[in-house]
Amino acid sequence: MSRTILMLPGDGIGPEIVAEAEKVLHKVNEQFNLGLTFEAGLVGGAAIDATDTPLPDETLEKAKAADAILLGAVGGPQWDNLPMAKRPEKGLLGLRSNLELFANLRPAILYPQLASASSLKPEVVSGLDIMIVRELTGGIYFGQPRGVRELESGERQGYNTYAYKESEIRRIGRVAFEAAQQRGKKLCSVDKANVLEVTVLWREIMNDLRREYPDVELSHMYVDNAAMQLVRAPKQFDVIVTGNMFGDILSDEAAMLTGSIGMLPSASLNSRKQGMYEPCHGSAPDIAGKGVANPLATILSTAMMLRYSLNEEKAAEAIEVAVSKVLDQGLRTADIMSEGANKVSTREMGEAVLAAL
Amino acid sequence: MSRTILMLPGDGIGPEIVAEAEKVLHKVNEQFNLGLTFEAGLVGGAAIDATDTPLPDETLEKAKAADAILLGAVGGPQWDNLPMAKRPEKGLLGLRSNLELFANLRPAILYPQLASASSLKPEVVSGLDIMIVRELTGGIYFGQPRGVRELESGERQGYNTYAYKESEIRRIGRVAFEAAQQRGKKLCSVDKANVLEVTVLWREIMNDLRREYPDVELSHMYVDNAAMQLVRAPKQFDVIVTGNMFGDILSDEAAMLTGSIGMLPSASLNSRKQGMYEPCHGSAPDIAGKGVANPLATILSTAMMLRYSLNEEKAAEAIEVAVSKVLDQGLRTADIMSEGANKVSTREMGEAVLAAL
Ligand SMILES: CC(C)[C@H](C(=O)O)[C@@H](O)C(=O)O
Ligand SMILES: CC(C)[C@H](C(=O)O)[C@@H](O)C(=O)O
Repeated sequence: MSRTILMLPGDGIGPEIVAEAEKVLHKVNEQFNLGLTFEAGLVGGAAIDATDTPLPDETLEKAKAADAILLGAVGGPQWDNLPMAKRPEKGLLGLRSNLELFANLRPAILYPQLASASSLKPEVVSGLDIMIVRELTGGIYFGQPRGVRELESGERQGYNTYAYKESEIRRIGRVAFEAAQQRGKKLCSVDKANVLEVTVLWREIMNDLRREYPDVELSHMYVDNAAMQLVRAPKQFDVIVTGNMFGDILSDEAAMLTGSIGMLPSASLNSRKQGMYEPCHGSAPDIAGKGVANPLATILSTAMMLRYSLNEEKAAEAIEVAVSKVLDQGLRTADIMSEGANKVSTREMGEAVLAAL
Repeated sequence: MSRTILMLPGDGIGPEIVAEAEKVLHKVNEQFNLGLTFEAGLVGGAAIDATDTPLPDETLEKAKAADAILLGAVGGPQWDNLPMAKRPEKGLLGLRSNLELFANLRPAILYPQLASASSLKPEVVSGLDIMIVRELTGGIYFGQPRGVRELESGERQGYNTYAYKESEIRRIGRVAFEAAQQRGKKLCSVDKANVLEVTVLWREIMNDLRREYPDVELSHMYVDNAAMQLVRAPKQFDVIVTGNMFGDILSDEAAMLTGSIGMLPSASLNSRKQGMYEPCHGSAPDIAGKGVANPLATILSTAMMLRYSLNEEKAAEAIEVAVSKVLDQGLRTADIMSEGANKVSTREMGEAVLAAL
């Protein structure tokens, strides 16, 4: 059995961190006899520069054929003034929608070794372990109609459409209920059902699903309250499920509660468990090319890949254990550096994980 | 010169906290010879119970005729299953839109006396003083079309429209630039211009306005990053301007950074400086009627009212000084209680402010 992994380094620090993660994948491939083969492709700004489009057909074909994709990050200031359709982000969004990667899993975990990195008090965040399940191929990100039109008055109006249909809500709801079943059995669905009709439907469908998962305790929370509760008492949450836009905001907020977003992986899955895996952090153009970026979120993304798309739990755990070991050894990239620790480069961190495997 | 203030206690703890704020207004009315007269009206769940509509015509007429409105809070579980058009929130939204209260000012201030209430580390939040300027009568809250429709496939789809026209963006932008001029001269506009067309227009108009306010430093931030930066380093912000939905989320997040949302007032203004003033917290049905709610956010809302709608800076400051004094005296309602302080009821807190005036 041969399985193909597509590597898409992308922009900014993407190439540096993906290089380290790739070494890790090669090593577990041998150690665990996984039969993985590797391909590479262009996406985002890198693809724009080479081919004038953020998602070349060749990349899309390779992505569709792959069992899993490892993405670094896309975007940077040099592409910020391009028209919407030509921006690096469209490469990412195009992959998500063409592969129907509707289920975005974003864990926010506080590593005990990095507890002091959080801007929150230790008692508020110690032991934090939340899973955010974000719908990724619908909602206002993809809603039609959209654009800028001229009104009769002569002035322009920008507009977007926030829409979800029952089946879209149901399938992400199932992923979230199942995640809750595997974890603490608590699911909080976040909406704005006191104002937005689309989220009234969202809430109704979540309530429907409850019957299929009687062991999971479902609650509902308005998005403004959720943004508050994440700051006030984040440990009240187990699994959170929400739409594309609210999920974008809340998952970044939750990630930052840990103080070490350079540590957090993510998975984007479709119904065939094909998946794209990427660090939660962005392309960080300010430190690109300097060899100081933290490769651990990307390395941990390969662990998620092994677990969710390749069904190789042992190899996944081996990587997670190795990462925990290098943290125990006191190795830190600049973003998670603290007094008394040992500051290392992107490559040194990657090598340390390899050695720990 | 006589000026009319409309009191709208609303639901939950609303009546209790508005009662204390009203006493404070009566007192400064005499002390500073303000010539204020007072009216009262029904809104939200209280209005639904009495008249079957969340915003009776009588209330709307009184609101239009008033110079300023003091609102407690609306909503509660007993009205949660009403159809959208009949919910308590529609009373609030109806007031905002009928009076064109497009400019929502939400300060997030850390009171030094309450520094330990925050879930964030003291060094991250000490001295925090952010002003969030939220657009309040447009965006996805009011966009048309909206609803739930049946698709050809037979399944239902919920949909809402997120729209802004140039003039709406420009007028809230001006309020924000002017607020920044009065403060630290830094304005951060929050959007999602890498994905949403409506916010590309938002960003363009903000950039246009920059020329009229050369002394203000304008920056732009994506909403997901803003949600992170508020947790990571909130003191980087001075004034934040954003649309209705993002403003709802970020202003609640920012308020919670202080740990004492029971202290935070807000103002909603139209172009004639007519305004509605309310605490940032909600109706807190769980503690309603118990006499334990914190009236200070509502009392501080009357200070904002005096400042923004009535042009009575001295009376406004007197109230703010009085609130600071009762905090110095160690008086605390349950929500801001800490060891060694003196726990007081809603009424005792109100009386203490009166005594300090
Ligand atoms: C880059 C951007 C389009 C993207 C998003 O908004 O989804 C990013 O913020 C993310 O969360 O993966
Ligand atoms: C009650 C609700 C409709 C309201 C809003 O979403 O605007 C509230 O959350 C607020 O921020 O004032």
